[in-house]
Amino acid sequence: MVHAESSTFAEGLTKEEVYTQVLEQASALLEGERNWVCNLSNASSLLYHALLSLPRPSSGVNWCGFYVVDTINPSQLILGPFQGHVACQQIPLGKGVCGTAAKEGKTQVVEDVEKFPGHIACDSRSKSEIVVPILQAGKVVAIIDIDCAELAGFDEVDQKHLEGFARIIAEGSDF
Amino acid sequence: MVHAESSTFAEGLTKEEVYTQVLEQASALLEGERNWVCNLSNASSLLYHALLSLPRPSSGVNWCGFYVVDTINPSQLILGPFQGHVACQQIPLGKGVCGTAAKEGKTQVVEDVEKFPGHIACDSRSKSEIVVPILQAGKVVAIIDIDCAELAGFDEVDQKHLEGFARIIAEGSDF
Repeated sequence: MVHAESSTFAEGLTKEEVYTQVLEQASALLEGERNWVCNLSNASSLLYHALLSLPRPSSGVNWCGFYVVDTINPSQLILGPFQGHVACQQIPLGKGVCGTAAKEGKTQVVEDVEKFPGHIACDSRSKSEIVVPILQAGKVVAIIDIDCAELAGFDEVDQKHLEGFARIIAEGSDF
Repeated sequence: MVHAESSTFAEGLTKEEVYTQVLEQASALLEGERNWVCNLSNASSLLYHALLSLPRPSSGVNWCGFYVVDTINPSQLILGPFQGHVACQQIPLGKGVCGTAAKEGKTQVVEDVEKFPGHIACDSRSKSEIVVPILQAGKVVAIIDIDCAELAGFDEVDQKHLEGFARIIAEGSDF
């Protein structure tokens, strides 16, 4: 049975070490359950608490979750499970950081969201953002979206491991 | 557009006042969007941050979210959107506090979870719990589940308003 302790992380680990633990935990967490809502709900919690356990800037993460491609209207993303404050319900494909990542199928690492054309400000506290697409059979089905209250909250280490996290979710879930 | 500030609550309000605000916000939050995943995701955030803004014992809330009746296997609940640490993925109908509320279609207010027969301990920090069923056309489609790290974290004020919250979700969402 899954326990809350699997999203409790020791202090003093490096970002590489924490992400390695997150990816191992994610594989275990998704075993035996392919329901995407269940899997994204636990995945957002795992990832959020992992990032909070790290030093700055990662500890400044203030939103961590998912948007999924709306099956009723595939030209927009719709809010999925997340950790953090209330968020925008729909995002048009191609709009803002999330919409761009979803449309292009490519990770967006944004050091300063104010400088991103068409940025959607759900929360004025968010200063930087990373958005990683989740692909199944070459098509974007969802995105991982993480906001940080500090500028330049994310780097290539985050990108590498979050892209691995996205692959684990894609392989382990039916969307 | 929905903003993060709608889940930010002033300090010093009574529980009645905060719940009144939560129910007003919930109606606004669900307007124009009937997707249940989107609605439960924002609803869990709204409710969690409202409870954390209150004095003890409400501020001891450590998990706030939803389980839904599994459409593939209706004899079990499956984890839905939540705020807090990683949680159990499936709960058999009739098992533990959540399963009992779902089976009986009745709110369960549990002062001490250790004394509840068949209690499922996802998180050993949780001491008390309230579970409120969400009904559509007389059938349970989901439950609101809130855990508190203090004993007797919930009372009849929570029950009354959470049952109102459940009705707003039921009316505003397609499950």
